Amino acid sequence: MAKYKDPCGSPVFDETFRDKLEQLFRWRRDVRRFRTDQVDSELIEELIATSALAPSVGNSQPWRFVNVADPNRRATIRANFETANADALGNYSGERAKLYATLKLDGLDKAPVQLAVFSDTQTPHGHGLGSRTMPETLAYSVVGAIQTLWLAARTQGIGVGWVSILDPTAVARTLDVPDAWQFIAYLCVGYPEEEHMDPELVRHDWQARVDISEFIVER
Amino acid sequence: MAKYKDPCGSPVFDETFRDKLEQLFRWRRDVRRFRTDQVDSELIEELIATSALAPSVGNSQPWRFVNVADPNRRATIRANFETANADALGNYSGERAKLYATLKLDGLDKAPVQLAVFSDTQTPHGHGLGSRTMPETLAYSVVGAIQTLWLAARTQGIGVGWVSILDPTAVARTLDVPDAWQFIAYLCVGYPEEEHMDPELVRHDWQARVDISEFIVER
Repeated sequence: MAKYKDPCGSPVFDETFRDKLEQLFRWRRDVRRFRTDQVDSELIEELIATSALAPSVGNSQPWRFVNVADPNRRATIRANFETANADALGNYSGERAKLYATLKLDGLDKAPVQLAVFSDTQTPHGHGLGSRTMPETLAYSVVGAIQTLWLAARTQGIGVGWVSILDPTAVARTLDVPDAWQFIAYLCVGYPEEEHMDPELVRHDWQARVDISEFIVER
Repeated sequence: MAKYKDPCGSPVFDETFRDKLEQLFRWRRDVRRFRTDQVDSELIEELIATSALAPSVGNSQPWRFVNVADPNRRATIRANFETANADALGNYSGERAKLYATLKLDGLDKAPVQLAVFSDTQTPHGHGLGSRTMPETLAYSVVGAIQTLWLAARTQGIGVGWVSILDPTAVARTLDVPDAWQFIAYLCVGYPEEEHMDPELVRHDWQARVDISEFIVER
């Protein structure tokens, strides 16, 4: 980031870049199988800095990153996932339950870097602009940062997996963060064991892609 | 989108691409001043299709796009904004109120394309996977799609502005969408009148960027 030098004038993004960007969008994956190689900590800091180039409501910059390094806390988070995942499985039956049980839905076993991401609902930045009628836009700002980090990570060959099968209140307690921090995502980060263009849940017949035309209406 | 052909094997994103991607992140702006030139409708459909390459919880694809074309509905949305914005101004005082009143916070006056984006909280896709303990991850999936669309639009020279100063319940009523659709964002889309690398709220001294190191903790 420090070495970034902007060219003069506003940039032009040509067709070659656009094609490559589309390839990036297509090859970004939710990764659950990681190699155990460490990721350079400077690279992680750079990715977090890049994520902060995302838009935020009122420029409130509500993103808060917790680098979860302590093995005991990691173990508690993993137990949190195991409980929530067992509960989730209990809500399916028949073939769907069998399929659910075969899916690998987290990389908590091996991911060398684990980031818990929060939204500071009391952020002093931005002076509340834009979030009065929709306070949830603070959380949305954090999500924009996460998608930005995800894309930037992929260009470095680094995979990200978002774990949401967690009791969010317990996560906040485990990580001992301020009460005003709302838990958004738990990210497993590291070099992936394998690469795919198709999402895991498509490949394992859980849910296919749906044609976008089904999701557009006019008013 | 239809013309996309993936190369053999997994892609390599080199330093040239990474630098250009960082430039894209830095030059993506929340645009509020639009030229009135129309945007080709096929291009809008392509951008929406690209947005659907974002991750979604359980591959639930909960994004729903409403292309708001009717002038009466647009006028109602604009009145909704004017009311919410006047209320917001009433909550500031002194210099901060004066500054707030000078800010242009929406492009509803001229944006040729207006997209309201919703999350289908009852989406049949994904079979509920991943969203049991955190149902808000459906909305978060939609936000990832919006950030993806925003970046893709910028590479085509198209600006996007996210209007959040709205009564969300009234927006849903104005656009006559299913009850299960949760309003996420109202996007103004079009060719920008001007381009900047610094956010409008930084340029007008509302809120500066904060060093990311303030937002990272270790546990």
